[in-house]
Amino acid sequence: MIELVDPLRSGDRRALARLLTAVENERSGIDVALAELYPHTGHGWVIGLTGAPGTGKSSLVTELAKAYRKQGETVAILAVDPTSPFTGGAILGDRIRMRDLSGDKGVFIRSMATRGSLGGLARATRDAIRVLDAAGFDRILVETVGAGQSEVDIVRAAYTTVVIEAPGLGDDVQAIKAGILEIADVLVVNKADRPGVDSAVKALRTMLELGHPASREQLVTHHGKLVQSESLQPQHSQDIWIPPVVRTVATEGQGIDELLAAIEDHRHFLAEADRMKRLEAQHIQMELVDRVRDALVKQLFAGLPTSALDDIVRQVQSRAIDPQTAVNHLLAFRPVDVAK
Amino acid sequence: MIELVDPLRSGDRRALARLLTAVENERSGIDVALAELYPHTGHGWVIGLTGAPGTGKSSLVTELAKAYRKQGETVAILAVDPTSPFTGGAILGDRIRMRDLSGDKGVFIRSMATRGSLGGLARATRDAIRVLDAAGFDRILVETVGAGQSEVDIVRAAYTTVVIEAPGLGDDVQAIKAGILEIADVLVVNKADRPGVDSAVKALRTMLELGHPASREQLVTHHGKLVQSESLQPQHSQDIWIPPVVRTVATEGQGIDELLAAIEDHRHFLAEADRMKRLEAQHIQMELVDRVRDALVKQLFAGLPTSALDDIVRQVQSRAIDPQTAVNHLLAFRPVDVAK
Repeated sequence: MIELVDPLRSGDRRALARLLTAVENERSGIDVALAELYPHTGHGWVIGLTGAPGTGKSSLVTELAKAYRKQGETVAILAVDPTSPFTGGAILGDRIRMRDLSGDKGVFIRSMATRGSLGGLARATRDAIRVLDAAGFDRILVETVGAGQSEVDIVRAAYTTVVIEAPGLGDDVQAIKAGILEIADVLVVNKADRPGVDSAVKALRTMLELGHPASREQLVTHHGKLVQSESLQPQHSQDIWIPPVVRTVATEGQGIDELLAAIEDHRHFLAEADRMKRLEAQHIQMELVDRVRDALVKQLFAGLPTSALDDIVRQVQSRAIDPQTAVNHLLAFRPVDVAK
Repeated sequence: MIELVDPLRSGDRRALARLLTAVENERSGIDVALAELYPHTGHGWVIGLTGAPGTGKSSLVTELAKAYRKQGETVAILAVDPTSPFTGGAILGDRIRMRDLSGDKGVFIRSMATRGSLGGLARATRDAIRVLDAAGFDRILVETVGAGQSEVDIVRAAYTTVVIEAPGLGDDVQAIKAGILEIADVLVVNKADRPGVDSAVKALRTMLELGHPASREQLVTHHGKLVQSESLQPQHSQDIWIPPVVRTVATEGQGIDELLAAIEDHRHFLAEADRMKRLEAQHIQMELVDRVRDALVKQLFAGLPTSALDDIVRQVQSRAIDPQTAVNHLLAFRPVDVAK
């Protein structure tokens, strides 16, 4: 694997593809290669994009990639599908993109699907981003389908997170999950030529006003009463970033420049006052804790006699011992000298 | 806490409420109480119910509770809200229910919201179910909003999982996430008096046909070609359970008897051929692994010098060391004698 790092750095696409496959399959030797390329990371801007199926996410990502290419920037697209393999979402998106972006050597597209645990996918995503970063891409677009915890895991790797909505996806409440809104740096209402776009934008703005403590304070003006502002303008001053809401029609290329500008604004916001440094430190800390957790449990179970877990499960099931006592038993099995 | 276990078992509602609060807040002494009541668990039937906002989940759960009460069974409702506190979903649902179910001593309703990690909520949910189980409730309805990983965590505690959809929630693809379908033992299309119910039911059946390996085999009949069956009947024979699709109008009480029957069918299915025993063993094993993982990481970081993690994060950020090397450093810090 390590012999692929120099070719990767000189733009060899086969080396890139092989390293990504090794990351995805957790192949042996990949850790050494990742350690070797790690000093060359930290240059590409990582943009996370998430949205429910039906929001036109893939088209939007394709248009964004085309716009960056026009500016002369190289683009990598990493499509992460945390849902079941049989949805085939990522693959379908790729086919559409292949048609639009194929033949351009400044673009690289790659899908990754769930393999085992959600935690495994989060780790593979982070490592794949590093490989793409070391390969020298200016913009790394990490795309995922909106499915709860997985978006949060992607945010842990992205610098700017774009959440994509669309009008007419039924109940506004349905489309606008508070948890997803909270991770958004930029909000997009795609398919903005459809009916219901105004109410979708309004619903998003209301959620933002209620959700952001900063904006809430700002709105409480007269005698502590909440005043609804007609349109909440993005506030980039001080230490507050209020996600702008951008309307796009990806299939027509509409609003893409505005989206680019919003992402760029956020990048400038992070560049000020050590914010980027603090964000990266947070990301690293969360990653280390995640990986330590996985390593510890792997070590523990590797050191367990084969039947030990089964025996303990049986005892809990028969109500001979309670779960906490079982956990204590398992922890006591922990081998003491495999930490190195 | 332990002094509350006897009153709990004799039906004291104040003891029940206090134990649940202690579980929710991870109060000290709760582990001893949980160990004490654990032998008295395993009798109530735990039903998980999940669905997106707008599917009428709360009304359906209320109707289900009323139906069980009519049969003379006691019911506990545990509403778990894994989304941000400011949605207030769980609380709203409770108010509706309070009106319909208040004054009935055979019903107990309790909400739990996110407090810290998703893992913490999963653990609190499991423990709360045990408290309700030991209190002697015949049916324990665990309700959650559809938000990805959290449903999966709830499934780990429920015996029968009901996934609730509704027509007209926009794009069918949106409403029918493959990952959620995979956890369903019973599917409900609520608000079945609305337009679009037939296409919603059909979409669910198609997904089931594609998704279930068992049903897929069954459908491949002529020369290996996939034959679409008009309506896939539930198959309870052999070791295969194909989730039935039940139409309900909860606000009118329609279809509730059918839903009850479907849940009962699934309970009988699990009662055969040691299935319930195997399911419970799986649940226990997953719980033990989760809890061991949390305990290990807590131990490691408790044993770390205060500045050690910050120092290592800084080294990774400056690219002096790579993340894997950092993980190895952290693991080497692991104290060796705190396992007991």
